Amino acid sequence: MTPVVSIIMGSTSDLPVMEKAAKVFDEFQIPFEIHALSAHRTPKEVEVFATGARERGIKVIVAAAGMAAHLPGVIASMTPLPVIGVPINASLDGMDALLAIVQMPPGIPVATVGINASMNAALLAVQILASGDESLQTKLIDYKEGLKKKIVKANEELKEVKFKFKTN
Amino acid sequence: MTPVVSIIMGSTSDLPVMEKAAKVFDEFQIPFEIHALSAHRTPKEVEVFATGARERGIKVIVAAAGMAAHLPGVIASMTPLPVIGVPINASLDGMDALLAIVQMPPGIPVATVGINASMNAALLAVQILASGDESLQTKLIDYKEGLKKKIVKANEELKEVKFKFKTN
Amino acid sequence: MTPVVSIIMGSTSDLPVMEKAAKVFDEFQIPFEIHALSAHRTPKEVEVFATGARERGIKVIVAAAGMAAHLPGVIASMTPLPVIGVPINASLDGMDALLAIVQMPPGIPVATVGINASMNAALLAVQILASGDESLQTKLIDYKEGLKKKIVKANEELKEVKFKFKTN
Amino acid sequence: MTPVVSIIMGSTSDLPVMEKAAKVFDEFQIPFEIHALSAHRTPKEVEVFATGARERGIKVIVAAAGMAAHLPGVIASMTPLPVIGVPINASLDGMDALLAIVQMPPGIPVATVGINASMNAALLAVQILASGDESLQTKLIDYKEGLKKKIVKANEELKEVKFKFKTN
Amino acid sequence: MTPVVSIIMGSTSDLPVMEKAAKVFDEFQIPFEIHALSAHRTPKEVEVFATGARERGIKVIVAAAGMAAHLPGVIASMTPLPVIGVPINASLDGMDALLAIVQMPPGIPVATVGINASMNAALLAVQILASGDESLQTKLIDYKEGLKKKIVKANEELKEVKFKFKTN
Amino acid sequence: MTPVVSIIMGSTSDLPVMEKAAKVFDEFQIPFEIHALSAHRTPKEVEVFATGARERGIKVIVAAAGMAAHLPGVIASMTPLPVIGVPINASLDGMDALLAIVQMPPGIPVATVGINASMNAALLAVQILASGDESLQTKLIDYKEGLKKKIVKANEELKEVKFKFKTN
Amino acid sequence: MTPVVSIIMGSTSDLPVMEKAAKVFDEFQIPFEIHALSAHRTPKEVEVFATGARERGIKVIVAAAGMAAHLPGVIASMTPLPVIGVPINASLDGMDALLAIVQMPPGIPVATVGINASMNAALLAVQILASGDESLQTKLIDYKEGLKKKIVKANEELKEVKFKFKTN
Amino acid sequence: MTPVVSIIMGSTSDLPVMEKAAKVFDEFQIPFEIHALSAHRTPKEVEVFATGARERGIKVIVAAAGMAAHLPGVIASMTPLPVIGVPINASLDGMDALLAIVQMPPGIPVATVGINASMNAALLAVQILASGDESLQTKLIDYKEGLKKKIVKANEELKEVKFKFKTN
Repeated sequence: MTPVVSIIMGSTSDLPVMEKAAKVFDEFQIPFEIHALSAHRTPKEVEVFATGARERGIKVIVAAAGMAAHLPGVIASMTPLPVIGVPINASLDGMDALLAIVQMPPGIPVATVGINASMNAALLAVQILASGDESLQTKLIDYKEGLKKKIVKANEELKEVKFKFKTN
Repeated sequence: MTPVVSIIMGSTSDLPVMEKAAKVFDEFQIPFEIHALSAHRTPKEVEVFATGARERGIKVIVAAAGMAAHLPGVIASMTPLPVIGVPINASLDGMDALLAIVQMPPGIPVATVGINASMNAALLAVQILASGDESLQTKLIDYKEGLKKKIVKANEELKEVKFKFKTN
Repeated sequence: MTPVVSIIMGSTSDLPVMEKAAKVFDEFQIPFEIHALSAHRTPKEVEVFATGARERGIKVIVAAAGMAAHLPGVIASMTPLPVIGVPINASLDGMDALLAIVQMPPGIPVATVGINASMNAALLAVQILASGDESLQTKLIDYKEGLKKKIVKANEELKEVKFKFKTN
Repeated sequence: MTPVVSIIMGSTSDLPVMEKAAKVFDEFQIPFEIHALSAHRTPKEVEVFATGARERGIKVIVAAAGMAAHLPGVIASMTPLPVIGVPINASLDGMDALLAIVQMPPGIPVATVGINASMNAALLAVQILASGDESLQTKLIDYKEGLKKKIVKANEELKEVKFKFKTN
Repeated sequence: MTPVVSIIMGSTSDLPVMEKAAKVFDEFQIPFEIHALSAHRTPKEVEVFATGARERGIKVIVAAAGMAAHLPGVIASMTPLPVIGVPINASLDGMDALLAIVQMPPGIPVATVGINASMNAALLAVQILASGDESLQTKLIDYKEGLKKKIVKANEELKEVKFKFKTN
Repeated sequence: MTPVVSIIMGSTSDLPVMEKAAKVFDEFQIPFEIHALSAHRTPKEVEVFATGARERGIKVIVAAAGMAAHLPGVIASMTPLPVIGVPINASLDGMDALLAIVQMPPGIPVATVGINASMNAALLAVQILASGDESLQTKLIDYKEGLKKKIVKANEELKEVKFKFKTN
Repeated sequence: MTPVVSIIMGSTSDLPVMEKAAKVFDEFQIPFEIHALSAHRTPKEVEVFATGARERGIKVIVAAAGMAAHLPGVIASMTPLPVIGVPINASLDGMDALLAIVQMPPGIPVATVGINASMNAALLAVQILASGDESLQTKLIDYKEGLKKKIVKANEELKEVKFKFKTN
Repeated sequence: MTPVVSIIMGSTSDLPVMEKAAKVFDEFQIPFEIHALSAHRTPKEVEVFATGARERGIKVIVAAAGMAAHLPGVIASMTPLPVIGVPINASLDGMDALLAIVQMPPGIPVATVGINASMNAALLAVQILASGDESLQTKLIDYKEGLKKKIVKANEELKEVKFKFKTN
């Protein structure tokens, strides 16, 4: 199996947040790899990774970082591949990481998702991969259809909730 | 009983916040319904609900949502009924939900209450319903009168608190 | 003409923001009054106004205030009528006024609209008045229909915009 | 004993924060009273209190409130006495209460202290009372002198902390 | 004339904001002085001023500062007199100055007013001076009465504003 | 020419921001269309657009919105295509739009770029399109190479700047 | 051993945060001292410390403070030595302390590190000391090299994490 | 002249802010260089610069950046030299740049100064250079002494300001 997505994080402490992304890729049967890299501690390794990713067949990179979160932007500066940034809530409710990822200067975009929103990062990666892949697009449509089930189930549970003047 | 108020929420996890609204409607003997709907997961169901609510006799809609809270605004765009938005604190202390609900563009207002303030949302709904209903208005005046009791009780408890130089 | 809506502001400097509300009431042919009142400078006049509004036939109050914006909440504490609060941007981009209006304690709701959003305040007032008024509701539906025209016009203008690879 | 300071709070839930103020007054032997009042639930009682406080011999008012904290400003609008406002952290880390207290419009100041800073509110009240009272001013100077002891003690404790390259 | 109030600012660039305070003291016929001092550039002069103010007959100090606004707190640490802090908007809409003044640690209060709110600072000083001064208190009551005039005038102006459905 | 990218905005007032995106597509010779749509004013048209975009050959959608910016999220809920959201600064420095776009709930990602960062939105779209397109990837690499020129030119200009102790 | 670095804190409650700084100095074998000082409670002791530090051989000062954090700036105003400020999270997530330290007026810089970032404060101190010290610089390079080990170890741990479609 | 300080900026548009730093170095007769570098556009040039600076005799680096300001942190990760970061106000009042510079992860400090505070950045650099340089330290003490003059001058100007009750 050759990976088409790379999940990059700064430390194993990000794994509890990022494993939701891994589960999405499992569900969509998309081969992926996970690496730890640090924009500040291993700048050379970041460069080797970022400049080589495309040739190894990687199509999308998902990079998570907290605080002054430079990792997604630094990777994005070294590859033509789309980079999805996940701001990790490590301080200030994650606002520092959100701003340090999303407010990139003109020329180097990072596709930013919500704070700790690793599941959405993975789904965005799938949407990008599905761009030229009819069957993956169909899976995505089914997946979105499946999201409704949670609402259907919620409605069933809400029906059980009793109030004197509740009519349904 | 035909409901005149709809409480809409995105998931059963909002119920602990929103059941305070239900209790207010019970107290004012106002028939209401509760539904789960999602602006993003069930857009069609939202449309069916919002465009049909008025004909079913609904007078006011109370919609709760967290994060990028689109539900109240999306419902408001599809009905002439007043929509009351409750920002749920699911991240960033609820500031994201507050701004995503209150900062609606010109033309489509959402009557926004405080973060997690479902009780106030319900009271606002009662105030709107009372607009043409003398007896409901009287109940509201009594209710506000009743709010003073908590202060009277607080004063009694504060009288019990002893400090050397406290005179009352 | 007996007014059914009161527009309350703290000073004539709020008029440029609030006259958009007046125009909406003109458009919907809803009689309204405008008064200057200050929660802090004329507390007695506020009390006289707020406790007497209902008996004078007022159905909805629209109150605008900036900075530590107490006016809408103070009025709301003295009437069973729905009070719509408009945060005025006088400092801190209007965040102080927004929070001082929307974060009301349990028991006394203020229906808050966006910062400087006087037009939405008026539309919300119309929606509340339309609650028991079929013809007003029809007007509202027409009004919302009319909002689309701006988008239609925008599309026409965008068609005139030329780029080499623009296809429409 | 006739009280010269009034401590006002909206509910007994503020007592754990505000009792630090009471202890300061005990320490400085300043007679005080504690009342529960609500700008929104008991506006008449607030008016009776605020307009009568000066005649009863009150010199300074300390008022605590959370969220859309109107109480200190509303009291200040009805008395020539200095009013000290204590923003209570009930939501948004207390920022809503801070802004709703400190950002008063021109003409009606509230002497604002930090979030939950009831001890500083009381000390500020003592400083105001000491204005024409030599002996109270001496006590204040002694009190400030006493604050140093905590630093002296901290230094003693820090001396016990051992590190290989720590020299003191 | 012996001054009873000191207005302290960091630079003449604060004068346009602070002269509103001077005008209030003129209006209340309260002798005051104005000095430039800097917590960081002239720490010794600050110390000389703060420790000597009481003996010179100063009763209240009004200190304005922007950015990392240390001046009011540093002065407050060196005198038993009440210190009123005015956060100057020099950056970040004045939020940095507000927090650097109001969030003082336990033991050293600063009576903080709104951002750039020098007029309120002066009025607060007058309220403190009036504490033991019946005639000054009467002037304050008159002054507050005078604030209503602006509202009365606003109402007169609003009466001139014409809308088709405006009833007053 | 069949468009592969759709640029969607709420009004022509967003055009000065969004035309930078159009210029990028011109530069990369990527056919695109521009439409005005509003999540709140034309919800049906949004639905028609979003559900039909894929079949018309659109590969990526770029959607700009300000204030309570629901448009990108609402579109994203109705299509499997990747949606890039551009927060427009229309109030609160664009923070309301940023949060209303990026903080999407799990299941419906929006690829968010910086405030007003339409150029980065377009480049991200190109990166996504380049995913299966070797020649477009080469253009992107060249484009990034070209970004350096601005730095080279800046260095030349900086060389001309003279200071006594400047060595280069 | 003569200390070359002073760690200053306002209370022993800051020790759990600041001991990480002490450990860094132990690791680099740099003699240091720890003192408790308060800008507000012991202004004279601060002055004695700050004006005498250079003569005692201190090269760098690390000062930690929370809330309206004046200590680093006040010390910096009294010494030509570089002062490193550590904002302590005691309220408002540490934003008040960060702004009160970093936003110093022109002329008196404080080298500010992140909220609670005492380890970085110490490393910055070492970098400053290493300025004229080749062997210390070599140690720093080795230290930074050592930081990579954590990433290497993280990668080893991530290899153990199993997902069906994980390829590495 | 061999430079001992490097001023790095991302574009010539930062020059109006950063030339204050250059003037400080001129005043202290410290040879410096100015370069344009971009963490994202010229990552290789950044690496060459950062890893070679020490050997070229550079003692301190001053790096300015706005928005998602990665440049100071990226440079800091590649050199043992102290790096001073200047957050440039290019959006969001500079808060994005401040957080992206100051909130560095453990191990890689950046000595952060205030928003646009290039003059303080330069003075901090001089303080660091003065660490082992008695004469430079004396100059710094003189410089700080000179800062008082502005206050002396302000006092003279304030003496000219006339109010009826102003006593000085």
